[in-house]
Amino acid sequence: MKQITDISSIKALAFDVFGTVVDWRTSIIRECTLLGKSKGISLAWDEFADAWRRGYAPAMNKVRDGKLPWMNIDEIHRMILDDLLIEFNIKELSETQKKDLNRVWHRLKPWPDAIRGLRRLRRRFIVATLSNGNVSLLVNMAKNAGLPWDCILSSELAKHYKPDKEVYQTAADLLGLKPGQVMMVAAHKDDLHAARRVKFKTAFVLRPLEFGPEGKPDLITDPSFDVTATDFIDLANKLNA
Amino acid sequence: MKQITDISSIKALAFDVFGTVVDWRTSIIRECTLLGKSKGISLAWDEFADAWRRGYAPAMNKVRDGKLPWMNIDEIHRMILDDLLIEFNIKELSETQKKDLNRVWHRLKPWPDAIRGLRRLRRRFIVATLSNGNVSLLVNMAKNAGLPWDCILSSELAKHYKPDKEVYQTAADLLGLKPGQVMMVAAHKDDLHAARRVKFKTAFVLRPLEFGPEGKPDLITDPSFDVTATDFIDLANKLNA
Repeated sequence: MKQITDISSIKALAFDVFGTVVDWRTSIIRECTLLGKSKGISLAWDEFADAWRRGYAPAMNKVRDGKLPWMNIDEIHRMILDDLLIEFNIKELSETQKKDLNRVWHRLKPWPDAIRGLRRLRRRFIVATLSNGNVSLLVNMAKNAGLPWDCILSSELAKHYKPDKEVYQTAADLLGLKPGQVMMVAAHKDDLHAARRVKFKTAFVLRPLEFGPEGKPDLITDPSFDVTATDFIDLANKLNA
Repeated sequence: MKQITDISSIKALAFDVFGTVVDWRTSIIRECTLLGKSKGISLAWDEFADAWRRGYAPAMNKVRDGKLPWMNIDEIHRMILDDLLIEFNIKELSETQKKDLNRVWHRLKPWPDAIRGLRRLRRRFIVATLSNGNVSLLVNMAKNAGLPWDCILSSELAKHYKPDKEVYQTAADLLGLKPGQVMMVAAHKDDLHAARRVKFKTAFVLRPLEFGPEGKPDLITDPSFDVTATDFIDLANKLNA
């Protein structure tokens, strides 16, 4: 894998979160399975989790295109959830239980290397989220999982969703840095390409299990990325942290 | 001192920073004295520090009244600094040295109880900044001093300065909380009164040395505050953290 040639200008790492830092799929399947057991609901919860996640990009696009007003991810997740409860014929949940289920996204669990890698990277760099998740979701997730962020940055602060350029520009501005001093870290190429277009540095992290054992994520690196890493430990090694 | 009757609803503590968490005056005098020694400048640096801080409220008021465009605190500090360098007849600094001096506000040192108190409070509550300082200033300060925030919130995110109500409302919204679930912690009554007007809980922390040994801060508590504490350890005790 390509080794970055010059990392001396990088002051901050901005992390995509869903899929890059946390394993949303396993976390959701686990909580839904527990909920299902307690309510006597038998369901293919992996399909439910995948459907919930699949609803997210189209909903964000509607916000981006002005077909929906600004909504944060909690609101988007709830809108999708309400549809899925009908589609999967789940009628056993009270409003309180629906609210709590929607907040499963605040309780996602990190990939096994994430906390250890972040602790190392944090010694050398500012480590910040840069997620489409809303601020409160990211704060609660960090608190719940022990993620050691220096700063919680979110698309919510730009009122634009990634990969809109405003998100990356707002993050660099708030950090008081030039775009070239910030490295976007993500498991998704569209996020990295958008960051790169506004002059961020880029690190591609491979998360082969993001979409489950049968998932087929794009793991072919791109020579335009500054670093490709197999996980956050490998990233720390490659960034000399 | 009054003990709060019900803290069970409080989920997050929002901290004023300059004067409440960090001892800006001692930090600035110390750095300026070192700079003066290295440049052969002899000056009453305590007066310089006090003048720098005194310039801050009038400048913020001009932004609030629309007489100045939105400027963050780094920019406000620099505008005041440029005036002070003339007023105090300091001609020995290069542009690089002026930039570095302006960033002394990113390197302010915490009061001796601050980190230990925050660590305890963080076990029970979300602990966030809610400062007129800009995000990058607060991130750099936390990193430099080891302040264990869960979240960096700033007036910059509301494009309003405290005590404008928008700052507190934006903070509660970003944390996904009702105002009554957030407690403002500050050494300054105007900040607490403004927070209280939008239904925040309030904690008054006494910082008798904020303005130096000769300073005369207002240390008389107000029965409208929910808690009054002598420092962050006392605050942790009173909030059962």
